[in-house]
Amino acid sequence: MADNRIAIIGTGLIGTSIGLGLASRPNRNYELVGIDRDREHARAAKKLGALDREVGSLEEVVERAGLVIIATPVVAARRILEDIGRFLIPGAVVTDVCSTKAEVMRWAAEFLPETAHFVGGHPMAGREKSGPGAAAANLFEGATWAITPSPRADERAVQVVLGLVETLGAVPLYIDPAEHDQYAAAVSHVPLLTSVALFRMVRDSQGWEDAALLAGPGFRDITRLASGDPTMARDIMLTNRDAVLHWIGRLQSELDTIRTALESGPEAIFDLFRSTQLDRDTFIQNPPQRRRPEGIEPPSARDAIGRMFVGNLYDRIKEASDRAPTRPRDDADLKRKLGIEDDRL
Amino acid sequence: MADNRIAIIGTGLIGTSIGLGLASRPNRNYELVGIDRDREHARAAKKLGALDREVGSLEEVVERAGLVIIATPVVAARRILEDIGRFLIPGAVVTDVCSTKAEVMRWAAEFLPETAHFVGGHPMAGREKSGPGAAAANLFEGATWAITPSPRADERAVQVVLGLVETLGAVPLYIDPAEHDQYAAAVSHVPLLTSVALFRMVRDSQGWEDAALLAGPGFRDITRLASGDPTMARDIMLTNRDAVLHWIGRLQSELDTIRTALESGPEAIFDLFRSTQLDRDTFIQNPPQRRRPEGIEPPSARDAIGRMFVGNLYDRIKEASDRAPTRPRDDADLKRKLGIEDDRL
Repeated sequence: MADNRIAIIGTGLIGTSIGLGLASRPNRNYELVGIDRDREHARAAKKLGALDREVGSLEEVVERAGLVIIATPVVAARRILEDIGRFLIPGAVVTDVCSTKAEVMRWAAEFLPETAHFVGGHPMAGREKSGPGAAAANLFEGATWAITPSPRADERAVQVVLGLVETLGAVPLYIDPAEHDQYAAAVSHVPLLTSVALFRMVRDSQGWEDAALLAGPGFRDITRLASGDPTMARDIMLTNRDAVLHWIGRLQSELDTIRTALESGPEAIFDLFRSTQLDRDTFIQNPPQRRRPEGIEPPSARDAIGRMFVGNLYDRIKEASDRAPTRPRDDADLKRKLGIEDDRL
Repeated sequence: MADNRIAIIGTGLIGTSIGLGLASRPNRNYELVGIDRDREHARAAKKLGALDREVGSLEEVVERAGLVIIATPVVAARRILEDIGRFLIPGAVVTDVCSTKAEVMRWAAEFLPETAHFVGGHPMAGREKSGPGAAAANLFEGATWAITPSPRADERAVQVVLGLVETLGAVPLYIDPAEHDQYAAAVSHVPLLTSVALFRMVRDSQGWEDAALLAGPGFRDITRLASGDPTMARDIMLTNRDAVLHWIGRLQSELDTIRTALESGPEAIFDLFRSTQLDRDTFIQNPPQRRRPEGIEPPSARDAIGRMFVGNLYDRIKEASDRAPTRPRDDADLKRKLGIEDDRL
């Protein structure tokens, strides 16, 4: 049986924020143990109250941990998944918070022992500042948290990760890993690159110093993502390159469409802005509804983590119907849905 | 001599915010009179305390006004400049807050009588919401406010507009109108179009409903500008089209550079993100210094508007040296500075 210990591997912005959120739960019955490649980061996380204990090796951090949370950039997660397997207790639940999911799911299947239960995760939240000093217990409040259970993960493992998500105030969203990566490229990775492109465009121009004087909140906001952690950004691009290239192409087509509108006169320009304003206002005011995973009664935020280790959770949910299908799609189906015609994806 | 009345033409987000800022000044000795094409907007501005009085005609609003503030989208400003001339008192100071400056300066020179003193303005501030209900007295706090005096504007007129700017807590920046429009295209107009392009890219894809579920704060922030007033946006593009087209081309080149980096491997990608992070952090922490206009002692925020109508301002500043040069450049010089080689600009 799992010990009541939660391991956090990587105590940067996300890992430390998770620790702060879990530590602040009233009457918690679990210990928070953490590690970071940069030991100063782990010490800082402990000092902030996000960890009860920080340790110096992967073996120590996952020792007797019922839940292991990998909160590193994507590429580092690969090595961690390779290394922790032999130290995990049977039945350990392993999750991650990485920005891309398909590669992570492949590594988990390849490297983790069959007795471990991997449930991928990705909170759609963040800040442009990185490191434990930027962390906040409420970072995930109201955020979507994508969940991609592996085929080997059992009901209990999914419940534990759902409990983690709800304890942190986030909204779980089941999604197929390939689909996640396509959509994340559109709503997160290409926006990040656009932020970089806009900043570089002005910064590398001869008039930078004068232009910077005119830069207002609009420019600061739209280039905010360009101040994010460069390792995380690089890893995203390395593990989701084809989808990112596809969506950059789409963005360039949109810019061409806008050029055409600018050359067509006032009505075309007004229509473009007016329809976009209406569509975006609709999106902000009435965002699409979240689906609940089918066949699982979501645990209440109060109960889920608390019951994680007390042994009755399995009994409580064993009568529940099968784990929600993650709706695997074949590639051709996904391509059709995304309107992708080339062979790249 | 000018009466102690300030006219605000256009009581949307910017006009109403100006009214609120001016109305809240302690011991103010001026009356605030406003008008809007949509009379409900003017009534709302009055109700909010941004105006002492709202009126139904341009003649009434500029009647005996010492300072006239045009706070409409650019294209509407043209008609207003055409129409108000015959109603202005001699010596009236006229300013605007429009997003582009070269056309506005041309219209002011063409339509205003010689006895009026036009000083162009553009506060680099705003919100994605429009209308008087979105206004705030502190909207301009700390913002750069570009100032482009016309050759006919006298010292006193420039002082009055500087006083307005400083009363609202903004930081004045003298700039040549053509230069303003070039740089504003880079730091404001193309970012707005990019925000539109990113939103349309996702909204028009077949996977929109699923992608929207994953959209986090990054996507919401980077598409924020797409919710701005479509008339203002259209007018910007109509009056600054060539500069905007130039910078869209630049942005597309940056996106091509990023594509190349993505295809070159981890080091190139990391270097791109790392150098951009460093450059942007430097920009945020140590933004370029504002230049003070040469030869003018800036009025203190406390005094400027208060003295505007009391008659001693002219005496106080008549010994000041000549009005700050607006550093007119020839087009070739500006093109060189911006690295523009084609004949478009």
